[in-house]
Amino acid sequence: MADPRFFRRGEPLPLGRIAEIAGATLAPAGADAGRLFKDVAPLDSAGSDDVAFLDNKLYLPAFSASAAGACIVAPEHAAKAPDGMTLLLTEQPYTAYARVASAFYPDPPRPAGVHPTALVDPEATLGEGVYVGPFVVVGPGAELGAGVVVHSHCSIGRGVVVGAGTEIMGHVSLSHCLIGRNCLIHAGARIGNRGFGFALDPNGYVDVPQLGRVVVEDGVEIGANVTIDRGAGPDTYIGAGSKIDNLVQLGHNVRLGRGCVLVAQSGIAGSTKLEDFVMIAAQGGVGGHLTMHKGSRLAAKSGLMHDVPAGETVGGLPAMPLRDYFRLVAMWRRQLKEAGKKK
Amino acid sequence: MADPRFFRRGEPLPLGRIAEIAGATLAPAGADAGRLFKDVAPLDSAGSDDVAFLDNKLYLPAFSASAAGACIVAPEHAAKAPDGMTLLLTEQPYTAYARVASAFYPDPPRPAGVHPTALVDPEATLGEGVYVGPFVVVGPGAELGAGVVVHSHCSIGRGVVVGAGTEIMGHVSLSHCLIGRNCLIHAGARIGNRGFGFALDPNGYVDVPQLGRVVVEDGVEIGANVTIDRGAGPDTYIGAGSKIDNLVQLGHNVRLGRGCVLVAQSGIAGSTKLEDFVMIAAQGGVGGHLTMHKGSRLAAKSGLMHDVPAGETVGGLPAMPLRDYFRLVAMWRRQLKEAGKKK
Amino acid sequence: MADPRFFRRGEPLPLGRIAEIAGATLAPAGADAGRLFKDVAPLDSAGSDDVAFLDNKLYLPAFSASAAGACIVAPEHAAKAPDGMTLLLTEQPYTAYARVASAFYPDPPRPAGVHPTALVDPEATLGEGVYVGPFVVVGPGAELGAGVVVHSHCSIGRGVVVGAGTEIMGHVSLSHCLIGRNCLIHAGARIGNRGFGFALDPNGYVDVPQLGRVVVEDGVEIGANVTIDRGAGPDTYIGAGSKIDNLVQLGHNVRLGRGCVLVAQSGIAGSTKLEDFVMIAAQGGVGGHLTMHKGSRLAAKSGLMHDVPAGETVGGLPAMPLRDYFRLVAMWRRQLKEAGKKK
Repeated sequence: MADPRFFRRGEPLPLGRIAEIAGATLAPAGADAGRLFKDVAPLDSAGSDDVAFLDNKLYLPAFSASAAGACIVAPEHAAKAPDGMTLLLTEQPYTAYARVASAFYPDPPRPAGVHPTALVDPEATLGEGVYVGPFVVVGPGAELGAGVVVHSHCSIGRGVVVGAGTEIMGHVSLSHCLIGRNCLIHAGARIGNRGFGFALDPNGYVDVPQLGRVVVEDGVEIGANVTIDRGAGPDTYIGAGSKIDNLVQLGHNVRLGRGCVLVAQSGIAGSTKLEDFVMIAAQGGVGGHLTMHKGSRLAAKSGLMHDVPAGETVGGLPAMPLRDYFRLVAMWRRQLKEAGKKK
Repeated sequence: MADPRFFRRGEPLPLGRIAEIAGATLAPAGADAGRLFKDVAPLDSAGSDDVAFLDNKLYLPAFSASAAGACIVAPEHAAKAPDGMTLLLTEQPYTAYARVASAFYPDPPRPAGVHPTALVDPEATLGEGVYVGPFVVVGPGAELGAGVVVHSHCSIGRGVVVGAGTEIMGHVSLSHCLIGRNCLIHAGARIGNRGFGFALDPNGYVDVPQLGRVVVEDGVEIGANVTIDRGAGPDTYIGAGSKIDNLVQLGHNVRLGRGCVLVAQSGIAGSTKLEDFVMIAAQGGVGGHLTMHKGSRLAAKSGLMHDVPAGETVGGLPAMPLRDYFRLVAMWRRQLKEAGKKK
Repeated sequence: MADPRFFRRGEPLPLGRIAEIAGATLAPAGADAGRLFKDVAPLDSAGSDDVAFLDNKLYLPAFSASAAGACIVAPEHAAKAPDGMTLLLTEQPYTAYARVASAFYPDPPRPAGVHPTALVDPEATLGEGVYVGPFVVVGPGAELGAGVVVHSHCSIGRGVVVGAGTEIMGHVSLSHCLIGRNCLIHAGARIGNRGFGFALDPNGYVDVPQLGRVVVEDGVEIGANVTIDRGAGPDTYIGAGSKIDNLVQLGHNVRLGRGCVLVAQSGIAGSTKLEDFVMIAAQGGVGGHLTMHKGSRLAAKSGLMHDVPAGETVGGLPAMPLRDYFRLVAMWRRQLKEAGKKK
């Protein structure tokens, strides 16, 4: 089970209820819907009271050898189950697991109230049930919506707006930004910094005033130690439901559509636009003033210098259609092999 | 206009004064020098009271369609202006815009005084007009020059010197360093950490004392969540006027000359020297013990393993003269095409 | 000498004692073992009272020109020493230097006690001699072992365990983690964040509860602004003695063996395993669900998509055996040259 120092498990759940939460079909059909399960667990450590899941084929051997009492699994893998395991069959085992695990480990009640060491400006507005943790600074004109949680050591700058239900982990800096509802911002994120904007001049660099904001829509997740610069004139904009992993960098005027996914250590240069549901894999880099159209994707560690059509996956350095990149790599291997033979 | 929650606009300015600030020539020559303008704005949202600018040819269509009352633009593009638009002609439109925007949005007055929650060691020295924000810690022997601004939650270590006029955003850690005048250090930067120095030994790694400092000259900008390790013996050194973007890493003993520009997520390994005005584009990496000579440049995402002569631009993985890299990429495309035909 | 504002030098040491600490042989054999030395210094600035060292052949000219009174050096380079320099001969000059420098600059006494501004939960447990700095928050159930040092502005979450002797620099966030003894965690590190785990669903992304921890064994060093996500179910695990440089990212369920070295800005995707003594050079990236076997290495800026056998060094994008990568690069250069001739 999850370490009780960090996670609080709820009550055992009957199998029928678990199947309902999972949106899954029980197999065998006559399985005892009233049988109680206590926990979720990985395939290799789960016991008879635990629910496991199989999502990645890599773990099929662990599935066949698992002692889990029940397992969430796609129908195509059902035949590989060990004897006696109850199956929760669904085409979406990972989503189903997410829902079941959340049922076993319900979110703890959120804290509320303003810690006595917090400094909340008298001209700030706090909604109902807001929590402001120790050593937090909230500036004049800032607005925290109902149920907002701000953990310790955060700095919420002048005029910043945070929508209802958003949670801000510790050590976050917010300035020049409007944050939507039900967002999650991880520790150490820096949002609203002055962008990297300067003009070359015979006497050195002349700073260009950065007069835009960062606008973050509802349901966005922003990872630890991420940096998002505010716009230079237009805003930097993050569409609803986007997921940004740790140590990502977004330059000024970047626009992300809805549901974009940016994996760790990736970066987007200034004024580039990602339409809805664009994905950037880890350590990917996108040049400035480009457009990645709807649903396009950049492979890990790749560097993009051109626009990408809708739905296309590109990769490599410089990025090209991923199929071409794989062909190129295969060609290199062939050339190396031939060069080896000649010797 | 810029969001008044975050930016305070100054008084309207007459066209003649704007031209003077911009170092620009009015066109038509008979334009009304007394006509008042209220703001700067992007080409696509500017109105008759606004000054826009055109710097990147990508935005020529927006220029021709703009309703801006005036626009800062290079003479070569003047013919594409819409009817009735007053032009501010200059060969340096971006620099001119920077100066004009700064005139419309003058810097707010700087705060001063020590916040009652700040902990300033009695053996620290504070110059005239210094501001020390909430929850800041200033160690013994630290010296903050006149007008230094230290925002909330910073930690200024024992003996650290910060020159007059420097502004330090929130959550910054400074130790073992001397910072020049009129620098700007963004949120979460970590300067003066013990470098990554250890020796291999049969019994494990033996830490090597890191006895140098970080020396930052005047007018340097250091981005959010940047990490700069102190020297191992010699100092880590940042020349005057250098610009360092977010999430950059500098190893111990790195030396940057004057006016170097390091774009986001780039990194420089230990003991490497960048002479004056070297530029490293985003996510670039420079190996250890190398020299990039004056004015040389490394392209985005490139990895450098050799010294670079003055003025040369290199790119690719591994980095080579950029012209060769582009030829190489073109060759790959040709080879792919030929391989496709053979099938 | 090292800047006395930042470093406190100890007493002068006699040559014989220095040789003992270094595990080195004196040359000439008749050197005065009682001669006092005051300091360590780089080759180019050392004087007659200083001990320098030569480790990297790049610096042989500086060695031959050095005025250092004594120098730690491998026997093979002894012939290049300038007249009158006393040599401390050892096959491990860098390790020897580390020990000698530590003797000249002994660690300052550690602080102890709880700062009056720190907030330590009554249900937290503090071992003997613990130091808790200003504006630190220690949550309920947290345990700090004897001699633990927690610098300013840290947040130690509910239930977190920190082993004896560990030092935590400022602005660190720890949650959902168990940290071993004698570790060093640099400023701004974020350990125990919820991993980047979500399932795709027709209605958007469904967050997957992240029910694991981060377990860090003894003697680990973790760099500034590093991010280490907690496990999704299994733990994220860092083996004893591993060294993690600044701005590194570790995804959920990553496992590092003993003595792994991860250089700055590298990243490891979820569920990947590094066995003992694996090294990842700067800006390297390792894909998810892979294994790097014992002692294998990934070159700087390289991207790994496959498992790596024990002891092998791989590099390039995508990573291949380093020897092949160098052959490939040489082939590209040849092809470029030939293409140039044809014109």
